[in-house]
Amino acid sequence: MTFAHRHLLGIEHLAPHDITAILDLAESYVEMNRQPAKHSDVLAGLTQINMFFENSTRTQASFELAGLRLGADVMNMAMQASSVKKGETLIDTALTLNAMRPDLLVVRHPHSGAVDLLAQKVKCAVLNAGDGRHEHPTQALLDALTIRRAKGRLHRLSIAICGDIAHSRVARSNILLLGKMENRIRLIGPPTLIPAGIDEFGVEVFEDMQQGLADVDVVMMLRLQKERMDGGFIPSEREYYHRFGLDAEKLALAKPDAIIMHPGPMNRGVEIDGTLADDINRSVIQDQVEMGVAVRMAAMELLARNLRSGPEGAA
Amino acid sequence: MTFAHRHLLGIEHLAPHDITAILDLAESYVEMNRQPAKHSDVLAGLTQINMFFENSTRTQASFELAGLRLGADVMNMAMQASSVKKGETLIDTALTLNAMRPDLLVVRHPHSGAVDLLAQKVKCAVLNAGDGRHEHPTQALLDALTIRRAKGRLHRLSIAICGDIAHSRVARSNILLLGKMENRIRLIGPPTLIPAGIDEFGVEVFEDMQQGLADVDVVMMLRLQKERMDGGFIPSEREYYHRFGLDAEKLALAKPDAIIMHPGPMNRGVEIDGTLADDINRSVIQDQVEMGVAVRMAAMELLARNLRSGPEGAA
Amino acid sequence: MTFAHRHLLGIEHLAPHDITAILDLAESYVEMNRQPAKHSDVLAGLTQINMFFENSTRTQASFELAGLRLGADVMNMAMQASSVKKGETLIDTALTLNAMRPDLLVVRHPHSGAVDLLAQKVKCAVLNAGDGRHEHPTQALLDALTIRRAKGRLHRLSIAICGDIAHSRVARSNILLLGKMENRIRLIGPPTLIPAGIDEFGVEVFEDMQQGLADVDVVMMLRLQKERMDGGFIPSEREYYHRFGLDAEKLALAKPDAIIMHPGPMNRGVEIDGTLADDINRSVIQDQVEMGVAVRMAAMELLARNLRSGPEGAA
Repeated sequence: MTFAHRHLLGIEHLAPHDITAILDLAESYVEMNRQPAKHSDVLAGLTQINMFFENSTRTQASFELAGLRLGADVMNMAMQASSVKKGETLIDTALTLNAMRPDLLVVRHPHSGAVDLLAQKVKCAVLNAGDGRHEHPTQALLDALTIRRAKGRLHRLSIAICGDIAHSRVARSNILLLGKMENRIRLIGPPTLIPAGIDEFGVEVFEDMQQGLADVDVVMMLRLQKERMDGGFIPSEREYYHRFGLDAEKLALAKPDAIIMHPGPMNRGVEIDGTLADDINRSVIQDQVEMGVAVRMAAMELLARNLRSGPEGAA
Repeated sequence: MTFAHRHLLGIEHLAPHDITAILDLAESYVEMNRQPAKHSDVLAGLTQINMFFENSTRTQASFELAGLRLGADVMNMAMQASSVKKGETLIDTALTLNAMRPDLLVVRHPHSGAVDLLAQKVKCAVLNAGDGRHEHPTQALLDALTIRRAKGRLHRLSIAICGDIAHSRVARSNILLLGKMENRIRLIGPPTLIPAGIDEFGVEVFEDMQQGLADVDVVMMLRLQKERMDGGFIPSEREYYHRFGLDAEKLALAKPDAIIMHPGPMNRGVEIDGTLADDINRSVIQDQVEMGVAVRMAAMELLARNLRSGPEGAA
Repeated sequence: MTFAHRHLLGIEHLAPHDITAILDLAESYVEMNRQPAKHSDVLAGLTQINMFFENSTRTQASFELAGLRLGADVMNMAMQASSVKKGETLIDTALTLNAMRPDLLVVRHPHSGAVDLLAQKVKCAVLNAGDGRHEHPTQALLDALTIRRAKGRLHRLSIAICGDIAHSRVARSNILLLGKMENRIRLIGPPTLIPAGIDEFGVEVFEDMQQGLADVDVVMMLRLQKERMDGGFIPSEREYYHRFGLDAEKLALAKPDAIIMHPGPMNRGVEIDGTLADDINRSVIQDQVEMGVAVRMAAMELLARNLRSGPEGAA
């Protein structure tokens, strides 16, 4: 069973065996990254370009480290201060970049669908590092690896995703991935932050943390994406924390060994109680970051294999 | 016949055999860059510093990729947010940098002549990545390689350079290069954007696109450099496009196999019709970008050879 | 005698034999850096992250070159435009970074003590690249190497540190280092720029350049740190230069072979006369920059040795 994709644009396009292939390969990189000498030549000779049209120090750093450790020639392009300002279109930027012959192109963009569009214009492998409210596939993959390592499996778990679902590509990619792997997904949040029509994804929706968290294995908190809230009801931080922030009392309703996740950066005291976030028996928030580098190494290696085997090798 | 230069400061200093040496070597890098594994160790052990006092995502990326692919240790210095702000002079910056012992220094600067000045103060090889309205030698070299590949030769061609000649270092370096290679050069643009005294370069000047484009082999459009126009007549974009923008009707006057060039980033609908820009039978705009990386690899390799052979080896 | 430290947080923690170990190793890198091929694999496989919460083009470049030349995978994180803005705490940033498994973490921070705090939260080696008014150990080490090479020794010298002592971590680290190596230290500056209680460091304090410079071997000028002066007396630049700026007349009081130092970037005509700064017989200002890269290479190599030998190897 092979990983036969040219791009990693979204969880939407992946089959369960693709997800397993990435996570299995990532496990070996978790081990490698824990050694002082953490470098291989799997991507040697390849050019990786990171093109972030939206700032993200963490995600960019994670992709950059992944490429450096696999021996790629890695270049960051700061798209804020660039040709974009000079009125160049996204497609012209894509064609220009394509002419520089990258092999792996990591793209973050504020508009949903922009990364897919760009992928149609270039000959290299494209990795979506987050596009608008659409997808953030490597985040869902790193969350999956974190869950699998903590719980020993990635199926038949009860998982609550809590908070600002509507503005979150993290939530969207996680719903798709966890659904494909046959888990029970509960979404918890104020109605204004739950997208319409979400029921068709086979999720249960709760407005109440106490009800939603009952007996779950995993509590996945989200970041309040204030920057993406255009109008609509915005709760005060204090009120939000009171109703939807994770504290010890609400967590007590989940299973005794339930784990706590957050994609970071955290707003302590808004989405989550600081003490819980730091509780090494419950919180796997730092593991998520660690898994992020490993999952990105694995995804880039699998895409690079298809690049090297030529266009016939990839679908 | 050797390439016996210490720096690449301008086309002005190059003989025709120097130009041919760079283009010939660049051809091999065009091929290398088209492979998935595109890395050599020609610059291994050398330090390349990119010092851009003016933003240019494309040109910096092109030089950075060139160095990375040749195995150099490449460092970018963002000079906007730097010591320049703290009131340090250009010469102090140069001396400081020199003490860090770079081998190859790539410099872009908003002032004409600043790169030459800097080259006098440092011991390494300096590549001019554009200085004010003065020179942009690697742009002219990549244009030359593009023309040579498309037309099969780089002499006795009729080449029109169109638009804002006065503010363009691209035009200036191209006029010098194409003249040295014995081509017929026509400059087309509004009188306000044609520099005085340009006739002594052996060019023909036209105010009218229809006249100027008649029977040319190459149509080289320029970017409107609004940021460099201090006062003087600035046409409206619509009027400019009507008179000087390249469209199918004007292009029909050129030879049937005439190629279209633009240094990018393009203002579609201002300097050039978008459909023409994308016409893969006529436009070589993406090839220009591709040749850019190859030409910069070749130039850095030739300069590095002289570095290694010591001061006697270079003139 | 081994260098048994896990971090390089300040000169405060170093014994004289530690200082000598760094300087001795750095000498070999001075030689290497003067060759065209200046690359080794001493840090191959290790990940170095440069995390600058305060802009410093020079210092960051020096650390970046040091890591690249030793074969590390080097990543810069621009912390200004980062998660810090999103309200993340320094400790969360540290934990996130730690989860990415760097081996060497180079940190500059505007707050005194921030780098020490961060070092307690991570498993890798931390190098302080300047924290508030506290310490800047690699600056003191590069100054020491410069002095040792110019004077043939690093003990029993008479050294004047002149200017804005109060706001200077450079001064603080130098006072500690030069004191440990048994030199005579004189501080010269206006009383408002001399920190209270400095006498206990065994230094002599002068308000008058003529008196302070008498018969010294080394004249170390400091940068006026206007950005760190919050209130208090700020002299006019002209008045400051008149009383405390180094000119030929004042320098005549020092020993005939006294050397001139400045950590850069210089304010010519404020702290120092431009002609003196450029006098290659007296000024070692460019040497300081050169020694900076070598000293950082040495420090990172020594820390990396302890990383590889495991936690028992380091204290």
